[in-house]
Amino acid sequence: MSGAPVGVGLVGLGTIGTGVVKVLQRNGAVIAERLGSPLRLVRIADLDLERDRGVDLAGIRFDSDADGLLDDPDVKIVVELIGGYDAARRLILAAIERGKHVVTANKALLAAHGAEIFEAAQARGVDVAFEASVGGGIPILRSLREGLSANQIERIHGIMNGTTNFVLTEMERTGAPFEAALKRAQELGYAEADPSIDVDGIDAAHKLTLLVAMAFGARLTFKDIPTEGIRGLVPLDFEMAEQFGYKIKLLGIAKARADGRIEARVHPTLIPASSLLSHVEGAMNGIAVYGNAVGPTLFYGAGAGELPTASAVVADLMEIARELRRGTAGRVAPLSYLPQALRVRPLVPLGEIRGRAYLRFTALDRPGVLSHIAGALGEQGVGIGSVIQRGRGGAEESVPVVMLTHPTQESAVRGALAAIDRLPDVTAPTLFVRIEEDL
Amino acid sequence: MSGAPVGVGLVGLGTIGTGVVKVLQRNGAVIAERLGSPLRLVRIADLDLERDRGVDLAGIRFDSDADGLLDDPDVKIVVELIGGYDAARRLILAAIERGKHVVTANKALLAAHGAEIFEAAQARGVDVAFEASVGGGIPILRSLREGLSANQIERIHGIMNGTTNFVLTEMERTGAPFEAALKRAQELGYAEADPSIDVDGIDAAHKLTLLVAMAFGARLTFKDIPTEGIRGLVPLDFEMAEQFGYKIKLLGIAKARADGRIEARVHPTLIPASSLLSHVEGAMNGIAVYGNAVGPTLFYGAGAGELPTASAVVADLMEIARELRRGTAGRVAPLSYLPQALRVRPLVPLGEIRGRAYLRFTALDRPGVLSHIAGALGEQGVGIGSVIQRGRGGAEESVPVVMLTHPTQESAVRGALAAIDRLPDVTAPTLFVRIEEDL
Repeated sequence: MSGAPVGVGLVGLGTIGTGVVKVLQRNGAVIAERLGSPLRLVRIADLDLERDRGVDLAGIRFDSDADGLLDDPDVKIVVELIGGYDAARRLILAAIERGKHVVTANKALLAAHGAEIFEAAQARGVDVAFEASVGGGIPILRSLREGLSANQIERIHGIMNGTTNFVLTEMERTGAPFEAALKRAQELGYAEADPSIDVDGIDAAHKLTLLVAMAFGARLTFKDIPTEGIRGLVPLDFEMAEQFGYKIKLLGIAKARADGRIEARVHPTLIPASSLLSHVEGAMNGIAVYGNAVGPTLFYGAGAGELPTASAVVADLMEIARELRRGTAGRVAPLSYLPQALRVRPLVPLGEIRGRAYLRFTALDRPGVLSHIAGALGEQGVGIGSVIQRGRGGAEESVPVVMLTHPTQESAVRGALAAIDRLPDVTAPTLFVRIEEDL
Repeated sequence: MSGAPVGVGLVGLGTIGTGVVKVLQRNGAVIAERLGSPLRLVRIADLDLERDRGVDLAGIRFDSDADGLLDDPDVKIVVELIGGYDAARRLILAAIERGKHVVTANKALLAAHGAEIFEAAQARGVDVAFEASVGGGIPILRSLREGLSANQIERIHGIMNGTTNFVLTEMERTGAPFEAALKRAQELGYAEADPSIDVDGIDAAHKLTLLVAMAFGARLTFKDIPTEGIRGLVPLDFEMAEQFGYKIKLLGIAKARADGRIEARVHPTLIPASSLLSHVEGAMNGIAVYGNAVGPTLFYGAGAGELPTASAVVADLMEIARELRRGTAGRVAPLSYLPQALRVRPLVPLGEIRGRAYLRFTALDRPGVLSHIAGALGEQGVGIGSVIQRGRGGAEESVPVVMLTHPTQESAVRGALAAIDRLPDVTAPTLFVRIEEDL
């Protein structure tokens, strides 16, 4: 039960890095028991050597010398937690070159440079593990790679960003506008001072890129993924959604089409209030996977945060330590497909997607407006399922009009909206939110 | 990408066995791509060679000679799907003795004879994999063993039996009594003709035994697990639960106490209607795991059925095939702890458990009855949170009285109930259902 300790070097002692130190210290005994040998954090590199992180670093070499860490023969596994692109990429490639295994939580980097990194790791015969990059502590990548490996994955959709889910839940519960809900998220530490990467859906698109590679063996660049954030939603939308039996969530959605193309998109979505996913609230994440054998599944947990993310990082360390003890590596290809087996697969253009839509028009409350809007939709063959017009403005006041369409091709709806938003009585761009029933 | 095929032998061509054949055939290409070599089903043994299972067995040797299958040098992995105890135990031990790896879905056998089997496998250096034995297609064991391996697991609770969850959901939705809901489950194939193993909680206790071993490294025999089924519930209970803000679910619950003891129990439970678990409906399963780093998680999916269960069996086959290709085995101890590291840990007696309880008394509607009941509770120090008395019977008619207690030690409630059930005006044994708030 007591093998030689496996040496770990950690680069980046920020929130997650500090969490890794805490998990290795608090759970060191059970980790050693499960692994048959201890994980030993031998070295940490960070530029800030002064800040008190509230952890005891006695016995760990702590300096700013990341290169020295990479060259340290006691370091078998390098944990990259500095984030960002250039420095992280250089660090990871340098670690691989030196024959070190790598654990990272850097979804942005992998979404952009994953192919280069995985190919370098494969050529050098080392592992790159990145469970923490998607879904925080939820073992979703491992589940796709191993637990559901017997399936053809047909679709993945989920709440992949805790910040936006917190904001949406807050808007829904309190009726607060976006800005106030965001401010609350910032006060509680759920949102950054500059929240763009989260609220504009970019973080979710990074994660979806990795999930798509894992699930479908498809190589995408996250810039190709149509991405819409949550800034356009107002409290009325939540109220209307509820009346129609829906909740509003920011989802990452990916589907494998029979013709070999991939649907991949990130946007606010109306989902049935009866679906399990609609009950994933606050800063939590929930990722649903549909496999052709297993059917529907859902994986739920904290998608971010110091200790949950560290839980995933340390699980990766344990997996690699197991390989090291057995003198093997690369047991499972990092994306469940080998890097060279990843295929560039075309994306389905949004215009081709069929579904129902939630439309919120802003129009002057004049006779004939509704008829003009309905007429423009009718011309494009867009059927209307329900209409709610709220309040009575004067003829010079704008009022919201909400409609749910029948299932239609998105290009038709977009065509109608282009015409509608040019109508003189329509005073603001129409909000268009996709509805997903099939969850 | 194209290694030698890995030969699989399947014993037991029932529902799950047929599912395994289907998954290997339908998903053979993607399995080979992920694995780097095909999984080849070379041989099947079953006593019934006539029945048409709707699958093409061309190219697979199919006979009733299980011994021959074990001795077949082309069979590297044996899948045991005959179920039951004696024959399955002999088969698995014989396979291990011959150096074959084993995949099984047999929770009943492992709950009773797991230690013997895992020790034999370890001594012989072969793997025994059993993901399909808990949660059907949900990769819950793998997640405990690897994805959450950095955590001290503090508690597990979940809906581990689809049959009972279907029956409870049906009672809740339609107001049907237990017998009618069970009949419906039987008609739809969700319940056996003899439903005892499911509705009395035994199947859930089998699964909880395995989860406890996996999560806490604790050796329990499932017979020691206090187990109550769902036969005592009536439609009124669902109505009352809803009024109080709860749903009723059959849960398996396990908690690790700081003093080293384990709480483990299976019983109907009132859980908050606001909890995610309360929205796991129909025949689906949901298993919540709380780890000291990751916090709360939930794993959701089909807990039974031909293809979902086969999804887990084939995932195990792929895992072992990966080991075989790398000339290694036993990379991860089957219970995440080595068999010899499993500790017999004492169970917490039910009487010591503290919590709120739902009590349904059946009493003649006579003056003073409520005061006698309340008095007996008060004598044991059991505080009453809410009372609902339904309908007015005549003085000779029994009516239900429902109470929710304040948090109390269970022994006190039991003491009070013993007295109450002896009261002359109390005409039937009181229903006692535990409430779990902390989900």
